[in-house]
Amino acid sequence: MSAHSPVTPLDAGDVEHFDHETDVLVVGYGCAGAAATLEATAAGAEVIVLEKASGGGGSSALSGGEMYLGGGTEIQQACGFEDTAQDMEAFLLAALGPDADKEKVSLYSRESVAHYQWLVDHGVPFKPSLWNSPTWVPPTDDGLMWMGENSYPFTELAKPAPRGHRVTSDGFGGKVLMQKLSEAVAATDVAVHTDTYATRLIVEAGAVVGLVARQYGKTYTYRARRGVVLTTGGFADNAEMVAQHAPQLVGLGVNSDGGDDGRGIVMAQAVGAAVKHMSAGQVGISLVPGMMVRGMIVNSVGQRFINEDVYPGLVGQAALYKHGLKVWVILDEQAYEEVPVDERWGVQPHFVAETLEELEQQIGMPPGALVTTVGEYNRHAAEGEDPYFHKSATWLRPLKSPFAAIDVQRGIAPPEYGEAGRGGAEVFTIGGLHTTVDGRVLDLDGDAIPGLFAAGRATSGLHSWGYISGTSLGDGTFFGRRAGVAAASE
Amino acid sequence: MSAHSPVTPLDAGDVEHFDHETDVLVVGYGCAGAAATLEATAAGAEVIVLEKASGGGGSSALSGGEMYLGGGTEIQQACGFEDTAQDMEAFLLAALGPDADKEKVSLYSRESVAHYQWLVDHGVPFKPSLWNSPTWVPPTDDGLMWMGENSYPFTELAKPAPRGHRVTSDGFGGKVLMQKLSEAVAATDVAVHTDTYATRLIVEAGAVVGLVARQYGKTYTYRARRGVVLTTGGFADNAEMVAQHAPQLVGLGVNSDGGDDGRGIVMAQAVGAAVKHMSAGQVGISLVPGMMVRGMIVNSVGQRFINEDVYPGLVGQAALYKHGLKVWVILDEQAYEEVPVDERWGVQPHFVAETLEELEQQIGMPPGALVTTVGEYNRHAAEGEDPYFHKSATWLRPLKSPFAAIDVQRGIAPPEYGEAGRGGAEVFTIGGLHTTVDGRVLDLDGDAIPGLFAAGRATSGLHSWGYISGTSLGDGTFFGRRAGVAAASE
Repeated sequence: MSAHSPVTPLDAGDVEHFDHETDVLVVGYGCAGAAATLEATAAGAEVIVLEKASGGGGSSALSGGEMYLGGGTEIQQACGFEDTAQDMEAFLLAALGPDADKEKVSLYSRESVAHYQWLVDHGVPFKPSLWNSPTWVPPTDDGLMWMGENSYPFTELAKPAPRGHRVTSDGFGGKVLMQKLSEAVAATDVAVHTDTYATRLIVEAGAVVGLVARQYGKTYTYRARRGVVLTTGGFADNAEMVAQHAPQLVGLGVNSDGGDDGRGIVMAQAVGAAVKHMSAGQVGISLVPGMMVRGMIVNSVGQRFINEDVYPGLVGQAALYKHGLKVWVILDEQAYEEVPVDERWGVQPHFVAETLEELEQQIGMPPGALVTTVGEYNRHAAEGEDPYFHKSATWLRPLKSPFAAIDVQRGIAPPEYGEAGRGGAEVFTIGGLHTTVDGRVLDLDGDAIPGLFAAGRATSGLHSWGYISGTSLGDGTFFGRRAGVAAASE
Repeated sequence: MSAHSPVTPLDAGDVEHFDHETDVLVVGYGCAGAAATLEATAAGAEVIVLEKASGGGGSSALSGGEMYLGGGTEIQQACGFEDTAQDMEAFLLAALGPDADKEKVSLYSRESVAHYQWLVDHGVPFKPSLWNSPTWVPPTDDGLMWMGENSYPFTELAKPAPRGHRVTSDGFGGKVLMQKLSEAVAATDVAVHTDTYATRLIVEAGAVVGLVARQYGKTYTYRARRGVVLTTGGFADNAEMVAQHAPQLVGLGVNSDGGDDGRGIVMAQAVGAAVKHMSAGQVGISLVPGMMVRGMIVNSVGQRFINEDVYPGLVGQAALYKHGLKVWVILDEQAYEEVPVDERWGVQPHFVAETLEELEQQIGMPPGALVTTVGEYNRHAAEGEDPYFHKSATWLRPLKSPFAAIDVQRGIAPPEYGEAGRGGAEVFTIGGLHTTVDGRVLDLDGDAIPGLFAAGRATSGLHSWGYISGTSLGDGTFFGRRAGVAAASE
């Protein structure tokens, strides 16, 4: 590696001259970079944004556009939901744990309504209507959705309210979010250097004072008078880093723009930065929630393993980490018919059978596996109960012949759904740099590294092991803003 | 933290004088430190060993004393087993994966017979007799045991041979191993500085040239003319590091001497070292294998989740990572009676019942949970089959009334069995510094850091996520030796 582009920091004394100089350098132009840029500029700092792609957007622009917000936003109110910062905090600590970042989660929850307003003030649109069923991305433009707040065990821990705020869009909302933030950036004096790949930091007496970047094969030096803000994303596209830190994600499909190579994390580590939760991953098995919640999901020996009405990413994590993705959705004809056509995403069952004995044989499960599991499920569902996993009674009904099964690993939607439709899982990494609530990057002694800031998936953010959709765009923009302010005032 | 003892490296230019000077500094006097010391000395280097406790031994001395060795050792031959390095390698790659260190596993397997001989030459005793049942630590002094090589799926991947080599001892063998290695060290000119805690490295032009240590409240500087070898163990005793890197281990009992604080790992990271697999943990649920293999282990809804005849640590990992340690051993009277009294470790069932309906009610499982699971198990066991998890027919028999259950979390043995008997799990960390087969510590560019070596649980060793007993004493001594040789020749 080192022969190509070393990450070991350069001493400022070895820099002959700086090609560019500004107050704040923002590295990476996704949602966290845009938010940091806007706030650093608003605080009076001169900013240059470096982006390795030919334009801004990053993985943020390819995302569904959910923002996890709550505590009583106007969208929640318009849809008839009361919510408090305390309930939001309690839900997030449980869903993002064990050992989620308490200080960040608390601040993020308390200031969520204000952050919603900031987004709206920057032109980000949200529609006041609710999509009221577990799903990947609703096939509508409804602006609010549940993220499993109304499922066990979260119903026992906090008063449920839907907090998935969806950026209004024709299709995925991430592109609209990035379009609005980019328009706001374009209205400032900020310079955006595209096709520019930051490779190593420049340090002076223990402080970060700039960086080295490549553009079209040439190397340039940048000086940052106040600070460098790393918003370079996670490392899901870096196979070596995934193998070193999150081996269970090796070889899976990646949900990113292809550029989440972890360079920002490693550049910071090379100047002594600490990291957290590098093993954690979001695991999307995206297209089946509507069917799953009306039927069940089972492992390779036909056992259920979770209440199917939780946030689908929690099902994905359980499917990967507990069952190696060898999971099947089992349903009956009625369940299939009940899923709105738009929400089937074109998924067709791989197996159909009149009896469970036939179905388990077709799949290759042990004889008796599905007969036993569906038998138990039906016996309790007839009473409106799920004593095994506590799925809400809303979704409980005895399944009856004819039955069907979807092999989640095998490809579950037509090609137009891209990677997500190919089956298996789409993952990205959650761990990253250890930062304060102001985006200051901490070193191995727990001290802030002067001049160095980070936000978004380059940091470990709110999360520990758990993940909920909308917390990446959410903590990216929220802590990106704070990092921008802090860097500008350095 | 930093107010007390910073880990950020000290520049040699800032060192007024060195209190001690030698060729090779070995930090930590467990099995890896002893092995490094012996080989560095044998290669002609002057060595000082620093140990923060008042004497050598570390967690190695408290361990069971299993060494994972094979490929045809004289003990294996004496017990009538053929083995090859290829089968050993194939087993380890599967058991320690996904993505175990192929180069290390291959070398370790190929040179295992020679390493066995080195141990014997240094006085380490092994008795040529086999303990032939899954267990925690055999209640005998048999010198050979299975580590799940004869269980599914490993039987499909490599020809089975038992490779757990047990240091002969009255009780746990770790203390005998460390006694023999310490005697060998004592026969050399090596100086051992006890009560001496290394806190930070000293660097000069990018190379490690020494370290700072504290002893009885005073600070001392040490110069290493050839190299520093970090054999400081894992970080299971450092709650903050565990939370940052292995959150699922937070709050569990720790299998260590209390000193596995990760300092060596962090000292090296502070000079730019890379780490691997920091999330991985060994999970011991130690006292029940004899009962478990004759009955079954189930989760909180009564589902089996593994073939109970695998290496018990794999059951422990599955119990923790898949089921949050909420697991019960279910057995019948005959199974209990069949376990040799010495191998029951005083464990008594928490629940006894004439029927499975009563037992599941007593435990608080869903009605039907155990009736269903045991029904399916018995139906197949009557045919000598376990199509669900492929437990060997050796251990299959329909269970019959009266039944019993052991709550693994609740305390499973009398107080004389210490931490292991208190229930729940005992864990330690597996991840650590990224090293070459010669113990050279790699930086974030993948280059060796001049002057810096490591071995044992301060490194990620052979492992990725998986773990097998005997691979810590095994890779600690094997790669400790190689690090000692490499440091001496620097």
